[in-house]
Amino acid sequence: MQYDLVVLGSGPGGYVGAIRASQLGLKVAVVEKAELGGICLNWGCIPTKSLLKSASVFEYLQHAESYGIKIDGKAEADFEAMVQRSRGVADGMSKGIQFLFKKNKIDVINGFGKLINNKTIEVKKEDGSSEQVSANHIILATGARSRELPNLPQDGVKVIGYRKALTLEKQPESMIVVGSGAIGSEFAYFYNSIGTKVTLVEYLPNIVPLEDEEVSKQLGRSFKKAGIDVMVSSEVLSVDTSGDKVKAVIKTKKGEETHEADIILSAVGISPNLEGIGLEEVGVVVENGKVKVDEFYRTSVDGIYAIGDIVPGQALAHVASAEAILCVEKIAGHSPEPLNYGNIPGCTYTSPEVASVGMTEKAAKDAGYELKVGKFPFSASGKASAAGHKDGFVKLIFDAKYGELLGAHLIGANVTEMIAELVVAKKLETTGHELIKSVHPHPTMSEAIMEAAAAAYDEVIHI
Amino acid sequence: MQYDLVVLGSGPGGYVGAIRASQLGLKVAVVEKAELGGICLNWGCIPTKSLLKSASVFEYLQHAESYGIKIDGKAEADFEAMVQRSRGVADGMSKGIQFLFKKNKIDVINGFGKLINNKTIEVKKEDGSSEQVSANHIILATGARSRELPNLPQDGVKVIGYRKALTLEKQPESMIVVGSGAIGSEFAYFYNSIGTKVTLVEYLPNIVPLEDEEVSKQLGRSFKKAGIDVMVSSEVLSVDTSGDKVKAVIKTKKGEETHEADIILSAVGISPNLEGIGLEEVGVVVENGKVKVDEFYRTSVDGIYAIGDIVPGQALAHVASAEAILCVEKIAGHSPEPLNYGNIPGCTYTSPEVASVGMTEKAAKDAGYELKVGKFPFSASGKASAAGHKDGFVKLIFDAKYGELLGAHLIGANVTEMIAELVVAKKLETTGHELIKSVHPHPTMSEAIMEAAAAAYDEVIHI
Repeated sequence: MQYDLVVLGSGPGGYVGAIRASQLGLKVAVVEKAELGGICLNWGCIPTKSLLKSASVFEYLQHAESYGIKIDGKAEADFEAMVQRSRGVADGMSKGIQFLFKKNKIDVINGFGKLINNKTIEVKKEDGSSEQVSANHIILATGARSRELPNLPQDGVKVIGYRKALTLEKQPESMIVVGSGAIGSEFAYFYNSIGTKVTLVEYLPNIVPLEDEEVSKQLGRSFKKAGIDVMVSSEVLSVDTSGDKVKAVIKTKKGEETHEADIILSAVGISPNLEGIGLEEVGVVVENGKVKVDEFYRTSVDGIYAIGDIVPGQALAHVASAEAILCVEKIAGHSPEPLNYGNIPGCTYTSPEVASVGMTEKAAKDAGYELKVGKFPFSASGKASAAGHKDGFVKLIFDAKYGELLGAHLIGANVTEMIAELVVAKKLETTGHELIKSVHPHPTMSEAIMEAAAAAYDEVIHI
Repeated sequence: MQYDLVVLGSGPGGYVGAIRASQLGLKVAVVEKAELGGICLNWGCIPTKSLLKSASVFEYLQHAESYGIKIDGKAEADFEAMVQRSRGVADGMSKGIQFLFKKNKIDVINGFGKLINNKTIEVKKEDGSSEQVSANHIILATGARSRELPNLPQDGVKVIGYRKALTLEKQPESMIVVGSGAIGSEFAYFYNSIGTKVTLVEYLPNIVPLEDEEVSKQLGRSFKKAGIDVMVSSEVLSVDTSGDKVKAVIKTKKGEETHEADIILSAVGISPNLEGIGLEEVGVVVENGKVKVDEFYRTSVDGIYAIGDIVPGQALAHVASAEAILCVEKIAGHSPEPLNYGNIPGCTYTSPEVASVGMTEKAAKDAGYELKVGKFPFSASGKASAAGHKDGFVKLIFDAKYGELLGAHLIGANVTEMIAELVVAKKLETTGHELIKSVHPHPTMSEAIMEAAAAAYDEVIHI
């Protein structure tokens, strides 16, 4: 069968691109070697959010009395049931993609796809047979996997990646999490909250090191208060899996320490899946470990496109989806605007949650801007008090000259839902005063955004 | 003492105006007959949100097993403790206002204030003495109280208003709530969720009758599913409090019915506090039960201003605050833009929550617009699935001609935090495509906003 478009990979880049292409009238096939929906849906964003929700409910239970609820007896985290729930949620979403593909008349070809030329993909099936699929356009959306460090090889038993961390047979008593980006921090929070003794090891001086320093420090304090052993400026030198437990030699500022745990979770980033898909054979240029693309995701080979974790830009599901839509709209002859990578929100679903968009204060200063910075703590928010979520703050960074919003950095309950306002604001080049004069509903956490903007201009009311 | 500004009332209109005025260099006093912070902070927005949070935590407990948590024993709502918590939260906030007044050097004069002329207020103290306060400007911000219907007189025991509903000595076994606006619906949800048998009576054909009809109907379904007896197109004709319980004769479409309960909560709106404050004496014009003001809240008498629930416009805390700031900035010689009453969000903190801004679909049609309407259900949202909150939807209404957002209607978990994005969007006259092309973080409930916009333009991905 001849297709207008074949997409290699059905993650949040691939499946979204396929659906949008079908909407635009293209005949589309998707090649997928595993579950529909890719890592995000099956082994990433979605099942982790399910576990984290279980943890959050469990946290409420532990503080039930402070909300005026008596529990006669005791509450216990049922790890197996939590994992089962998260698998159910992921399976449901994957079935949803199946439904959407059917509805949009998108063919699914199960197997491992490899470029033969700029019009042909060869798909190796599970049964060993092969099939060739032809298309006018090919989008590579093969995603990424857990990155392996040489001194932290994953054996899948005692040293694991995020996939295994989602489906452990039993709750470990202790765990060392290496890397404190979103993935590492989320697992550290989850396992700690259900009673695992967690040590979080970060190479850089702060956890969630890509965030604004004040946010990083606040999350560090919250984690320590919650009982996580946070080790910053620290590095795992070697691991020894020969015993019952796993031993890690960790270099800290004070010297080398040996830590022992049931499990080490390696969360030191991801590696793009570029191997075996025929890039070299057909001449698709790879630079610095990513496929080289232009602003419409065209690779060096005519008719071959690449999106998502295998191209430069933030390795995030929503970036992959946005790139996919843009790429496909361009293929279909529309005139989309290129993506503004400076306006991509990032979220970490710990407790407190972290969400940000745009430049950190340091980055903005380094870029030479004169700044107006406003900060509003949730401790001064009525809604936060009523909800019992007084941790955290909203920090907004404006260009002093034109009043434009340069960056937003939020930490607290629900901030992953609040950040969208600032993405829209940033897209429309909203000024501080336009935010101040947008009437936010009372009482909400979102008022803190209005107040943080007001704080930047010495007009804040509630502090 | 001679002041630049005296504010009558310390609610979210009065205290916010006082603080902003002090920031702008005015010497300010506030006259208050009761607790600082007014109804909102002491008897409205804040303590209700505390009770509702208790209810929400209690709901999680009842569904704990579905999140993978075992409770060995049983959970019970401790009504007294919930009320105590809510009083504590309100008291804390009220003390916060005290602190802010001190910080901003605002004098507080305790007592009941009455206009003597356009420069003088006489304050009657609790001890019977009086004090005259002089100011160049006087802002009336006296707020409102629970409205009494002639056939539903409040005795404060069996027929009560919102104040009493916040501090009942014991949880009633049964309650009839009359009126299904935000206040009535929130109390109906709260009491039902902790086990009171609740009947909700609404005169109009739908509950939360000011909301878009689809939202109203969805909340009605959710309430019924939760066990609330929802009676629409119904009217309380009379009550009989002579027995142990209270009996209400309710006229429905099918005829008259007598219902019995421990308590009737009257939540049929509010009455502005206009009595005894000297309006007639100094000649402040009142029209249709509200003080007549211009776009900068100047009354008919030079130097006297009025804001909040006593003037036309939505009787909401955030409206009062916005009016206060604007009024004071104008007094201080700034050039603020008048408030756009078409861009005021409204929230109802039930479960599911309701939030909206701008025109309903019906209002937009009636206004002659040609519409693009997009709707996205949370049942198709990955985050909603992971969180176990699949009820509800986002509905966006665009002007087909220019693509401008006319209205947004949300029902579901957390939508009271999500609506701020649409307020900012509406303020900046954001188009549907600007919302679609704002990259929302995955996975969040807020993606449903982007998807609803996409649905309006046949570009939706996940349905």
